[in-house]
Amino acid sequence: MTIIPAVSEMQYFAAHARQKLQRIGFVPTMGYLHEGHMSLVRIARKLSDVIVLSSFVNPIQFGPKEDFVKYPRNDARDDRLCEKEGVDVVFRPSVDEMYQGDHSVYVDETKLSAGLCGRFRQGHFRGVATIVTKLFNIVQPHIAVFGGKDAQQARLIEQMVRDLNFSVQIVVAPIVREPDGLAMSSRNAYLGENERNRAAGIYGSLCFANRLFTEGERDAARLAAGIRGFLQANASPLEIEYIEVVDYRTLNPVAIIESNVLVAIAVRIGQTRLIDNIMLTSDGYGVKA
Amino acid sequence: MTIIPAVSEMQYFAAHARQKLQRIGFVPTMGYLHEGHMSLVRIARKLSDVIVLSSFVNPIQFGPKEDFVKYPRNDARDDRLCEKEGVDVVFRPSVDEMYQGDHSVYVDETKLSAGLCGRFRQGHFRGVATIVTKLFNIVQPHIAVFGGKDAQQARLIEQMVRDLNFSVQIVVAPIVREPDGLAMSSRNAYLGENERNRAAGIYGSLCFANRLFTEGERDAARLAAGIRGFLQANASPLEIEYIEVVDYRTLNPVAIIESNVLVAIAVRIGQTRLIDNIMLTSDGYGVKA
Repeated sequence: MTIIPAVSEMQYFAAHARQKLQRIGFVPTMGYLHEGHMSLVRIARKLSDVIVLSSFVNPIQFGPKEDFVKYPRNDARDDRLCEKEGVDVVFRPSVDEMYQGDHSVYVDETKLSAGLCGRFRQGHFRGVATIVTKLFNIVQPHIAVFGGKDAQQARLIEQMVRDLNFSVQIVVAPIVREPDGLAMSSRNAYLGENERNRAAGIYGSLCFANRLFTEGERDAARLAAGIRGFLQANASPLEIEYIEVVDYRTLNPVAIIESNVLVAIAVRIGQTRLIDNIMLTSDGYGVKA
Repeated sequence: MTIIPAVSEMQYFAAHARQKLQRIGFVPTMGYLHEGHMSLVRIARKLSDVIVLSSFVNPIQFGPKEDFVKYPRNDARDDRLCEKEGVDVVFRPSVDEMYQGDHSVYVDETKLSAGLCGRFRQGHFRGVATIVTKLFNIVQPHIAVFGGKDAQQARLIEQMVRDLNFSVQIVVAPIVREPDGLAMSSRNAYLGENERNRAAGIYGSLCFANRLFTEGERDAARLAAGIRGFLQANASPLEIEYIEVVDYRTLNPVAIIESNVLVAIAVRIGQTRLIDNIMLTSDGYGVKA
């Protein structure tokens, strides 16, 4: 396994792999890897010849009051996990390598990024779209695998690939969960023991909404009220940022569920912001990840 | 010579050329080709194995009151010129092929695009950066050649390539001029005979500024006043949009000329907006294109 810190070296590697007609599979991460990331690597491996995992905590997708500085890092452990999983290249550039002092070009998504997390994280999706564009141009992947927990991000990347004509196939992978249902996230490391126990209620509330749905509930407001009640009963104290029922393609809120929808929530438990989601499909069955 | 209207076919052609290790040279245009465009093709040919010229009048870089609808077109003549000059592929997509109804992703440059033409053409450089990104992803060029008349555009594309890590070498070609000095432009076709004669004064005013500079003038305001006086005496009636002396890298206005500067002007003669520029270099000699 090779660890590459320089953009030019990564581009050289990618160009060389493409000349050999190897398919490049790409897993972009912010490091501090967990089983969720490893599931993305395994998917990428099935679909490609060479696996590149990027590990870069992207400063421009964090707001000024967010957790860029304290975001957890453990490069040595990450490398062991990648080696074990058959990653070929870990691309781990410095911030200076990725952003020049007079950086001035950004990629902006203007519709899908307005709601959900975009409403609470000003500039976040500009940061995401910009870094993913940069990484696509550097890693030159045929396939890129994104985690389904960040559903809005995944949808936005799909749109970006279409609108900017990237020749990259996007795969959105199912959410990987802890035994009690909590979606895996590097930020789970922030949780104290009591907070960690309450956090299981997040997925519990989505399962509750799923049950209401399979029993026939189609009113989005009543589903959201059900989730809210469940969270307050099972995960308090917590701060609910949003509970939304949206069309899975447009990410626009729906009032009555008629086709596939995404039920997405964001909460704060203590200082830690956590997100999760499930899809409810138009055939009348909810989908558990 | 092949004419390709479909994005997917163009991407296939490009991928195939790259597999054969051919270098792809790219000349993006809005069609209605003239000798300026042909000079770009000749530069591209020297540096690459396969030449792709795109011909696409990009609606999103025109303002609502600008000339998108009446922009001149002559595909048959363009094809003859391209054939003669050894272009391998003309990529000529429709607007629908390039922009889906719910297009929502744009590339924004936030510093270099603020002044000069950006101040008078809201959204223009978003349109330019977005279409060039799309074309780079579709044509997959090794080299792309841009005309020096659109100096701000060329500088912005260089910045975009750096900031978004495109593996494309940008070449900015010298301005090609008519015998009387008018910079070649598809929009010159809008000019009536009397307007066309006055338009020669645009380059005349830049030559006048160049003379002041070589004679020792270093005060930007006095140079601009000289240009203004020359235009009023030799190209009236006309409307002066801007006369600017800027650092050629940052495009920020300079008061005293100490290093390389760009002298850029935009005027309207009748209904026609025309731009031109010269570089003044720090060795004390102006550069005539």
